[in-house]
Amino acid sequence: MTYCVAMRLETGMLFASDSRTNAGVDHVSTFRKMQTFEREGERQLVLLSAGNLATTQSVVSLLRQRAKAEPDGHNLYTVASMYDAACLVGETLREIGQRDGPALSQSNIDFGCSFLLGGQIAGEHQRLFNLYPQGNFIEATIDTPYFQIGEAKYGKPIIDRVISYQTALPEAAKCALISFDSTMKSNLSVGLPIDMLLYRADSLGAGLKRRVEEDDAYFQQIRRGWGECLRAAFASLPTADWGWDQG
Amino acid sequence: MTYCVAMRLETGMLFASDSRTNAGVDHVSTFRKMQTFEREGERQLVLLSAGNLATTQSVVSLLRQRAKAEPDGHNLYTVASMYDAACLVGETLREIGQRDGPALSQSNIDFGCSFLLGGQIAGEHQRLFNLYPQGNFIEATIDTPYFQIGEAKYGKPIIDRVISYQTALPEAAKCALISFDSTMKSNLSVGLPIDMLLYRADSLGAGLKRRVEEDDAYFQQIRRGWGECLRAAFASLPTADWGWDQG
Repeated sequence: MTYCVAMRLETGMLFASDSRTNAGVDHVSTFRKMQTFEREGERQLVLLSAGNLATTQSVVSLLRQRAKAEPDGHNLYTVASMYDAACLVGETLREIGQRDGPALSQSNIDFGCSFLLGGQIAGEHQRLFNLYPQGNFIEATIDTPYFQIGEAKYGKPIIDRVISYQTALPEAAKCALISFDSTMKSNLSVGLPIDMLLYRADSLGAGLKRRVEEDDAYFQQIRRGWGECLRAAFASLPTADWGWDQG
Repeated sequence: MTYCVAMRLETGMLFASDSRTNAGVDHVSTFRKMQTFEREGERQLVLLSAGNLATTQSVVSLLRQRAKAEPDGHNLYTVASMYDAACLVGETLREIGQRDGPALSQSNIDFGCSFLLGGQIAGEHQRLFNLYPQGNFIEATIDTPYFQIGEAKYGKPIIDRVISYQTALPEAAKCALISFDSTMKSNLSVGLPIDMLLYRADSLGAGLKRRVEEDDAYFQQIRRGWGECLRAAFASLPTADWGWDQG
């Protein structure tokens, strides 16, 4: 499985993805699920993927291969808007589905996958899309500034409590790491390292990239600190006066 | 959807279930998902259900109807062990599946459901089982003292951090309410009231039953307190020194 989260906030965007893939429990590997399509000063696009690895890798390979073969053609380095970029990823996803779907369906293999695509292209503000396995998509708004794909539920409560459109980027990064920590504690299919990218609004630059490994000092501090805070918070709340001895 | 949790701890057992059911978003109702089969001084069995409501209600109706028709027959009031009780629930579930399954499958309706069955019968220690939609089941142990069914993921992290076999029952109740609060904050398909039952080990009594409604003073205290604690804990942790201005 996988866990990815992306946030479009007032001052910038945050992207984070784990890197564990598994086919059953005995075929566990590390694959980067974050791809960037950058042109310094002009665009920064970030693509996060969850789901069937063969499908998501094929989508990325085709997007890159075609952009290389025809640099001036219709590709993620030339599309005029983030909306057009989302359409192109969706079309490519459908193409792979048509090509590989029948054979995989015959073996009852789920070939579906999801993408988060966010970033900024010169002339537009920053935008964030959540692409469904069918290739259609929704866009983040000020009311709903974040999307998750993959194993999203364990790490959702902390985001729901903390994140708003006005949250500063360093706070968002802290929240994302706590969200990943909660997910990894409850689900073995999500694992380190975590790839993070922080993009400052209107910078049109590469952003700050960080791969968070097991020995990352800040992540260790957050993990330990959050666990201790939670236990202290739990202990500080009263127990109910419900007459426990009646049982 | 539904969220139920049950814990088998050293000093007793905790059962909690929400009461929201929905067929789509426009058919939302309140149904109790906790059933008890009690014989004071001799047995206390608690059954929690999640999944297709027609299926779970049929299972409970058949179990009750047959016990009433033949009080001395093989039923939840007469079985000699919790293991036999779990077998009987599983068999009844399979019977409904065979009766209703074909018609529902034709309409692509998911008729599956899950049960948590726990309690104690005189002569045995307290036991807890998690029954799968196929009618087979697993039993809780000292290492894994709790089970969840339904919308389990949102509320799992707090249980994983706090609960062990040695946790006292009032602390377990506090944890369960926090787990429900986190779930209800992130998922509309789980809703109040919450039915709770606390059973003291070896009491063979009815236990302490409580229906937690919106205006329950203790639940309000826990909700508000937990939200405040989480935000304070989050604020107390440092942000990373990753060079945020490079973006």
